[in-house]
Amino acid sequence: MTNLNPGEPASSALLVVGSVALDTVETSRERREEILGGAASFSCCAASFFAPTRLVGVVGSDFPAEHEAFLRSRGIDLGGLERAPGRTFRWSGRYAADWSTRTTLDTQLNVFETFKPKLPAVWAETPFVFLANIDPVLQLDVLTQVKRPRFSACDTMNFWIGGKRADLLRVLERVDMLLLNDEEARQLSGCSSLPAAAKAISALGPKAVVIKRGDAGALLFQGGEVFAAPAFPLDNVVDPTGAGDSFAGGLMGYLAATGDTTSAGLRSALVAGTVLASYSVEDFSLDRFRALDATAIRARVAAFAELVRFTTPKI
Amino acid sequence: MTNLNPGEPASSALLVVGSVALDTVETSRERREEILGGAASFSCCAASFFAPTRLVGVVGSDFPAEHEAFLRSRGIDLGGLERAPGRTFRWSGRYAADWSTRTTLDTQLNVFETFKPKLPAVWAETPFVFLANIDPVLQLDVLTQVKRPRFSACDTMNFWIGGKRADLLRVLERVDMLLLNDEEARQLSGCSSLPAAAKAISALGPKAVVIKRGDAGALLFQGGEVFAAPAFPLDNVVDPTGAGDSFAGGLMGYLAATGDTTSAGLRSALVAGTVLASYSVEDFSLDRFRALDATAIRARVAAFAELVRFTTPKI
Repeated sequence: MTNLNPGEPASSALLVVGSVALDTVETSRERREEILGGAASFSCCAASFFAPTRLVGVVGSDFPAEHEAFLRSRGIDLGGLERAPGRTFRWSGRYAADWSTRTTLDTQLNVFETFKPKLPAVWAETPFVFLANIDPVLQLDVLTQVKRPRFSACDTMNFWIGGKRADLLRVLERVDMLLLNDEEARQLSGCSSLPAAAKAISALGPKAVVIKRGDAGALLFQGGEVFAAPAFPLDNVVDPTGAGDSFAGGLMGYLAATGDTTSAGLRSALVAGTVLASYSVEDFSLDRFRALDATAIRARVAAFAELVRFTTPKI
Repeated sequence: MTNLNPGEPASSALLVVGSVALDTVETSRERREEILGGAASFSCCAASFFAPTRLVGVVGSDFPAEHEAFLRSRGIDLGGLERAPGRTFRWSGRYAADWSTRTTLDTQLNVFETFKPKLPAVWAETPFVFLANIDPVLQLDVLTQVKRPRFSACDTMNFWIGGKRADLLRVLERVDMLLLNDEEARQLSGCSSLPAAAKAISALGPKAVVIKRGDAGALLFQGGEVFAAPAFPLDNVVDPTGAGDSFAGGLMGYLAATGDTTSAGLRSALVAGTVLASYSVEDFSLDRFRALDATAIRARVAAFAELVRFTTPKI
């Protein structure tokens, strides 16, 4: 873990609930089978570069010990990772050559079908909480187990917006921030313009709304302000799986590390998330994170600042 | 015209060649017939807020006097606008409700079919030149009529990349900058990643490559540097027609006004272009420009700076 403030108290912990999966990924160049994936894996791993991170999720008896060892090696606390009899959640997808589309080939919920998150009692006081994209009923379940977190955020997807809207709305009433992509924002709000969509979503509860737009970057709407963070233009995208989860994890980990949830703090956290997401896609699975360190993160943060640097036109 | 540097010499002139058209535009809310359009109209009008602007193009005998009067009212020099017997160029298109797609319903070249650009002799020394999206043969024709412009840029489209590639390549050998959208960049270069596409295109001639991505903003590649300018998130898009041309015109007009074609100057110019494009789409045709002034432009430049403002994460 990076110590953000040497000599100061350790940063606050972040709790993440979400999927841990075995992914089979096909790109135009390569196919990889049963590699470590899942929203919680990516989010926790990205967050672990900034803050103590706690994972709540479930794997089956077939989950490889080496994956567990890798997550532990990142300092992630697996005290909330249940090992259930049966097979681990599996996802399989294929990307178009230009990354413009992703086709889901197979989804097997397996042990996730009957998952009931159970937080270790000592985790009830975790100040930062990220509810990755899972059934909103489970997200709500976790929210009731943590006592008044300082800052909570959730992700969601079209499947829940369409199929479990009432449950999702109950989650939204209780979280500080929602992260979702542009299509999901339009679906949830019924508004076609993103500023209008964000405003409508904020009225449902979350003070901050982050709209993720893949290689078009991300937008943060909060208190009437908008912040636009372009994505990092990359020459070497290997596997975009988990980019959004790495973005969210980097963002939430940075928030937990700094404790700064003001508008300025959220903007910086979006940049941290952008940087982690940009690294995530440079290899399959979480492999790019294996070789990543604070120096590399710092270098890309500097490159991001250079990417958006400009002198205000004089008019 | 905005005087950028009161007390200093007048800014350099910008010459624009391209289409002047009568557009019929259908959005999900409204349909407008035979409104003023065309790449040169949008580009010149946007540029006219910054620099003396000269239009080279053609209209038919049916071109309404009020449109000509409006262009003149923006200070645009129409000394290169030919009035030919016949009908003005017409374009007709329809937008999807979420603006994600545009369908061209009709294109009538009319007087544009036999157009041969003829520059007034005194315009041969124009220091800044923008070749808007027209047949590369005509672009080349204009380039041979201006004597060593200080800075030249061109736009193009899929139709010319596919159908007149050899002519387009001859233009590219001679211009300083190419503006095109992401699909066109991929088509021209054969590269799927945008940084790779920009690099390949630069090798064909233009030192600077600007990739326009609509509401995902624009990227400037130059001398190994990248600059990302997000688009302005708008709540009130009325008609996106001409956004890219307004962007290019604002960019080139600002360059002509400042004379600063360094990397820093180009970055500022992209921001100026982004601001003009964001205004352009707030009404049909060039109507938003009718009510625009330096104060409004300055206000949105400030809003853009606020949109991308952040404190570098400390890691």
